[in-house]
Amino acid sequence: MRILLTNDDGIGAEGLLAVYSSLKKIADVDVVAPLDQKSSIGHAITLSQPLFAKNIFKNKKKFGTAISGTPADCVKFAIGVLKIKPDLIISGINLGHNDGCSVFYSGTVAGAREAALLGYPAMAVSLATFQQPDYSYAAKLSSRLAKKMIEFKFPYGKFLNVNIPNLKQKEIKGVRITRQCTDPIHGLFYKNINPHGDEYYWMSGKIPSPQKDVNIDTYALQQKYVTVTPIQNDLTDASLLEEIKNWDL
Amino acid sequence: MRILLTNDDGIGAEGLLAVYSSLKKIADVDVVAPLDQKSSIGHAITLSQPLFAKNIFKNKKKFGTAISGTPADCVKFAIGVLKIKPDLIISGINLGHNDGCSVFYSGTVAGAREAALLGYPAMAVSLATFQQPDYSYAAKLSSRLAKKMIEFKFPYGKFLNVNIPNLKQKEIKGVRITRQCTDPIHGLFYKNINPHGDEYYWMSGKIPSPQKDVNIDTYALQQKYVTVTPIQNDLTDASLLEEIKNWDL
Repeated sequence: MRILLTNDDGIGAEGLLAVYSSLKKIADVDVVAPLDQKSSIGHAITLSQPLFAKNIFKNKKKFGTAISGTPADCVKFAIGVLKIKPDLIISGINLGHNDGCSVFYSGTVAGAREAALLGYPAMAVSLATFQQPDYSYAAKLSSRLAKKMIEFKFPYGKFLNVNIPNLKQKEIKGVRITRQCTDPIHGLFYKNINPHGDEYYWMSGKIPSPQKDVNIDTYALQQKYVTVTPIQNDLTDASLLEEIKNWDL
Repeated sequence: MRILLTNDDGIGAEGLLAVYSSLKKIADVDVVAPLDQKSSIGHAITLSQPLFAKNIFKNKKKFGTAISGTPADCVKFAIGVLKIKPDLIISGINLGHNDGCSVFYSGTVAGAREAALLGYPAMAVSLATFQQPDYSYAAKLSSRLAKKMIEFKFPYGKFLNVNIPNLKQKEIKGVRITRQCTDPIHGLFYKNINPHGDEYYWMSGKIPSPQKDVNIDTYALQQKYVTVTPIQNDLTDASLLEEIKNWDL
């Protein structure tokens, strides 16, 4: 098995290294990841700037390729330039949860989405904490899921969005197959003034309080479940499509 | 009627000005758009940098607010800071088509998606050319669609992705309600060496040759139709969800 690994926290991120070590036990692993931190970059791609590629070494051996772009750039570059032919593409392990509407903002999720668009089985894996991460269980689970995806011949054009509580394995209640929470993440803006007298706003997000339904990823994650949300890349709204046909355009 | 207008080509873009003039005839229009060009920025949001807001004047009257961020930032800022309460949010008119999988890469589309996430009727409008744009018909059609969206009480959490051929109205074959083309846009990489001897790659995209079905946006657009694709924000793949439940995780 050959796995391509990317992320949005950058090629030196602890979460990428943790899942790399775990995946190496079951597969050949190619790492093509952003040179820099690219959190909340969404599915941006770099068309108006050139991209640079840099070989990264660890213990005098090549570890991977760092790209001066986004996670989606990395996947396109790995396939289009480096000619890697993976059986599976994994993006992560991200520092921070990517449940609910974070699927739109997350660079990690975009790495998996790009993989799925290009026709590869793919998953995004995120750890639900922004501090003191313990990647050990998440890394182990990623390998387990990787094997399942190959075994079950994961379908084209879709991917898995996996979120894992930052807990010891015994504290985790189990794995739930969930729906994406669609509640909005409203912007919270903190106004301040810089040393030059200019007003600025720093944005944060207000995490929704979702419906108490363990079939919804955001709630299940809060309830200490691992959430596995299957994501499609055909965004057409079939019912609205029929409705609009009556609009007389 | 109150309309919030954003885009990804920046607040000075010709396409934004064209639709602004058209919308002014039917509504109060607030403009909150990126200060700079943000094409292919996807649904990126700015969390690791501060945002600056700048009032933009035209003929000594305030025209709008430029934000040092992305289209999605602009929508969040307009609602969260400027407290604008629009009946409809429009993103565009973009210079360049955003059919098919461009819904993932496009900042224009992300502006409309963010609006829909926050609970507003929304549409993204794009003109299918990268040179010599004629926005006149596209601007007129945008106003017409805006009125229809209000009239039909456009549903929550969804939006329209509209693509318009760069042709005179009489050359356009009509308006089609379409599905999103899911064919991938493969990266094309052009390798070169800069004056300092460093290798770089410039990425472009290979537009797919879709199935010849005028119900698919990419093909219909090529066939000189306006395409109106209804987009949903719940990405859960319902059939895969049931399938994965058998995986014994």
